[in-house]
Amino acid sequence: MGLSDDLAAVVGERHVLTSQDVIDGYVTDWTRRYRGTAACVVVPGSAAEVAEVVRACARRAAPIVPQGGNTGMVGGSVPWQGGPASPDFADAAAVVLSTHRLRGLEPVDVVAGQVTAGAGVTIAELNAHVRPAGFSYGVDLASRDSATVGGTIATNAGGVHSVRYGYTRAQLLGTEAVLADGRIISHLAGLTADNAGYDLAGLLAGSEGTLGVITAARLRLWSAETALVAVLAGVDTIAAAAGLYAEIRGRTSRVQAAEYFEAAGVELVCRVAGLPLPLDREYPAYLLVEAAGADAADQLAELGKLADAAVAMDPAGRARLWAYRERHTEAISAEGIPHKLDVAVPMSKLGPFRAALATATRPYREIVFGHIGAGNVHVNVLGPDPDDERVDEAVLRLAAAHGGTVSAEHGIGRAKARWLHLSRSAEEIAAMRAVKSALDPAGLLNPGVLFCGAAG
Amino acid sequence: MGLSDDLAAVVGERHVLTSQDVIDGYVTDWTRRYRGTAACVVVPGSAAEVAEVVRACARRAAPIVPQGGNTGMVGGSVPWQGGPASPDFADAAAVVLSTHRLRGLEPVDVVAGQVTAGAGVTIAELNAHVRPAGFSYGVDLASRDSATVGGTIATNAGGVHSVRYGYTRAQLLGTEAVLADGRIISHLAGLTADNAGYDLAGLLAGSEGTLGVITAARLRLWSAETALVAVLAGVDTIAAAAGLYAEIRGRTSRVQAAEYFEAAGVELVCRVAGLPLPLDREYPAYLLVEAAGADAADQLAELGKLADAAVAMDPAGRARLWAYRERHTEAISAEGIPHKLDVAVPMSKLGPFRAALATATRPYREIVFGHIGAGNVHVNVLGPDPDDERVDEAVLRLAAAHGGTVSAEHGIGRAKARWLHLSRSAEEIAAMRAVKSALDPAGLLNPGVLFCGAAG
Repeated sequence: MGLSDDLAAVVGERHVLTSQDVIDGYVTDWTRRYRGTAACVVVPGSAAEVAEVVRACARRAAPIVPQGGNTGMVGGSVPWQGGPASPDFADAAAVVLSTHRLRGLEPVDVVAGQVTAGAGVTIAELNAHVRPAGFSYGVDLASRDSATVGGTIATNAGGVHSVRYGYTRAQLLGTEAVLADGRIISHLAGLTADNAGYDLAGLLAGSEGTLGVITAARLRLWSAETALVAVLAGVDTIAAAAGLYAEIRGRTSRVQAAEYFEAAGVELVCRVAGLPLPLDREYPAYLLVEAAGADAADQLAELGKLADAAVAMDPAGRARLWAYRERHTEAISAEGIPHKLDVAVPMSKLGPFRAALATATRPYREIVFGHIGAGNVHVNVLGPDPDDERVDEAVLRLAAAHGGTVSAEHGIGRAKARWLHLSRSAEEIAAMRAVKSALDPAGLLNPGVLFCGAAG
Repeated sequence: MGLSDDLAAVVGERHVLTSQDVIDGYVTDWTRRYRGTAACVVVPGSAAEVAEVVRACARRAAPIVPQGGNTGMVGGSVPWQGGPASPDFADAAAVVLSTHRLRGLEPVDVVAGQVTAGAGVTIAELNAHVRPAGFSYGVDLASRDSATVGGTIATNAGGVHSVRYGYTRAQLLGTEAVLADGRIISHLAGLTADNAGYDLAGLLAGSEGTLGVITAARLRLWSAETALVAVLAGVDTIAAAAGLYAEIRGRTSRVQAAEYFEAAGVELVCRVAGLPLPLDREYPAYLLVEAAGADAADQLAELGKLADAAVAMDPAGRARLWAYRERHTEAISAEGIPHKLDVAVPMSKLGPFRAALATATRPYREIVFGHIGAGNVHVNVLGPDPDDERVDEAVLRLAAAHGGTVSAEHGIGRAKARWLHLSRSAEEIAAMRAVKSALDPAGLLNPGVLFCGAAG
């Protein structure tokens, strides 16, 4: 009797995947840069089964790597052993715990504007479920067809609407989760006023699977915006984009998204996706803003007349403009295995940071885009060997040197664990480690994620 | 050499208060219901001094009770030994740590819409500081002249604007705090996109001084609303008030506040404050809604014509309407020492809960008001002896039986520690205790708050 037999006794044999080619599909990161192996993949069908799976793994000291849509991009959802300078863990002994079968989706509570969803529900499915009731979910992102409720909570995903609705943590009214000792904590009543004790749901959000396996969540919904207008404007620099965004915010309060991208990315998207240039001529950089409400339409349409900009108010027209932003990721991926560095700096530092970035990534090709409203810049570097972490370190140190963070929205995962100290002090990391040890003393849940080695 | 000598060596003799009548001013709760004693009061002037104070107390195993404005109303900021059925702690050995001298207030960062404030700054001072720059702070409450930045974070205060801006946790971009081992954790860079590790600031928020002493915070600001309209409408029941509120929300998106109160409270306010009745005739209950924007003004003015309602758009007129709500607390206090029970139930349960409440509080006088947008009901009971906890228990159990929480916004404090289990499962409480033990193994910080006894 081995571990997979123990797990089969819990979830049934067909939900324990042991053949190597099936496992291969679960142990490679979306970027293809982070790749490991695993003892097996287990796919429990309920929180109770997740609890039994966690207990079974604990008995055999098998590390658990929780996995949702596996779109996280920092090696946090695959049992990757880490780069040359990162800590190893025994990936061959690891169990990938897929949440795909946790697909409960309750009817929308239209009075409260809330819904309870299982961890394995995708963001696209969640939105499709709530839309007929006139609601939308506050987090949306390009990977919506794969990214799951559980994964986006575990990583506190941001996405394109965070400038309006906040990150995933802000959508949470409570979670159901399995802790490392197999206990289930459940807080799904959906009270918006509830100050009875610590915010465990908020603590689990962004803990990247290191404190518990999220199995379901009670989520806040927002009234769906119908009158939307999108403007794509050409600008000269990232600082100009930030300035234009500030001007738009001053004119209208319901900005839904503010995306930045550059000529290199647009050129690539146009080539890979066969699209025409978005504006009459090429610009060094672009700002895409989407806002809601009739006043926004007037304001942005007027802005469109002033600047070189395209304005769209119908769904098809907006989708056309959004394609230039949303197809970046796949277009970059078609060119090779990118080094994806998701950082943020204070708005006032965007200009100097962008200028210095060109030097830090030399001699490689850099493609930069991001959510400018939060100072969030996704730096994609094409060229270096996947295992070569020098350019990663250079970019992360640069962000830190500009008062920024090494992770804006993707999290730390395994890929950035050795650089967490650039963003958090020794005192903060010690406090975080104390919390981790308290809830997972054996280090069963997602070892190698967030923390580097035993005391680093 | 005693503890107060140790503390005087850190903060200077004049900032260690040892005379009994001075101490008396710090060891009685705002409600006057919770009263204890203390070894001394210490008033450090910086985070570094707080850290030294914590270390000095740790060396002598003296419990620390952090105190901001002392307006929390659940005995969480005074060294009260607990009611007849609550756990004791050695209040005579306790040190009250007042944050009043932590009064740093940085210039408003107008680009980011943020400010860094010391824990001892009051909410009124904070708002006065940010208003000239066109901003307002998202949390406002009747105790604004006393309640502090640190205290409102420690209790995750809600207040009248939570329906629009959320609770205090939602305003936090980071905190500076001293942990039980004297380490300072500081995260004040103000990045809105920052997923590098656990949300320690969010964990400290609402931890009621049990995990750390908050010394400063980086706070999100909101564009100040100028065009405000207030409507005070007479209704028959709390369910009717909830229905009217839902209708208003459907008409306008910028609802700033939605307050509920009743005839008994209005009668009391009118008598104590010498005010006329708010409307032409008496109503069983009232809904006060404030909203922003020109469309809100039109919508609410129209509503004012339909219902029996008073509408005000000028500051003086709005203040006149708000007085009926805001003077409840002092008017109740003038009648005696109230039992204040701050609970919330799902919106759909407000009617049945309110009906059952009348029985649960019999034979005493009950005055009910609250933030109806969150199902938050403040139940004030006048009559029972301060030490008689029977009516408290009856009301809290009633809220729990209606799917509600024993604490909507005031927190658990010492007063409700024995009823935490009505709102949180044994598994959740075990996880909370694990976090507490990890960060404060000796139980130095605010013992008796949140958790009841050693393992209850």
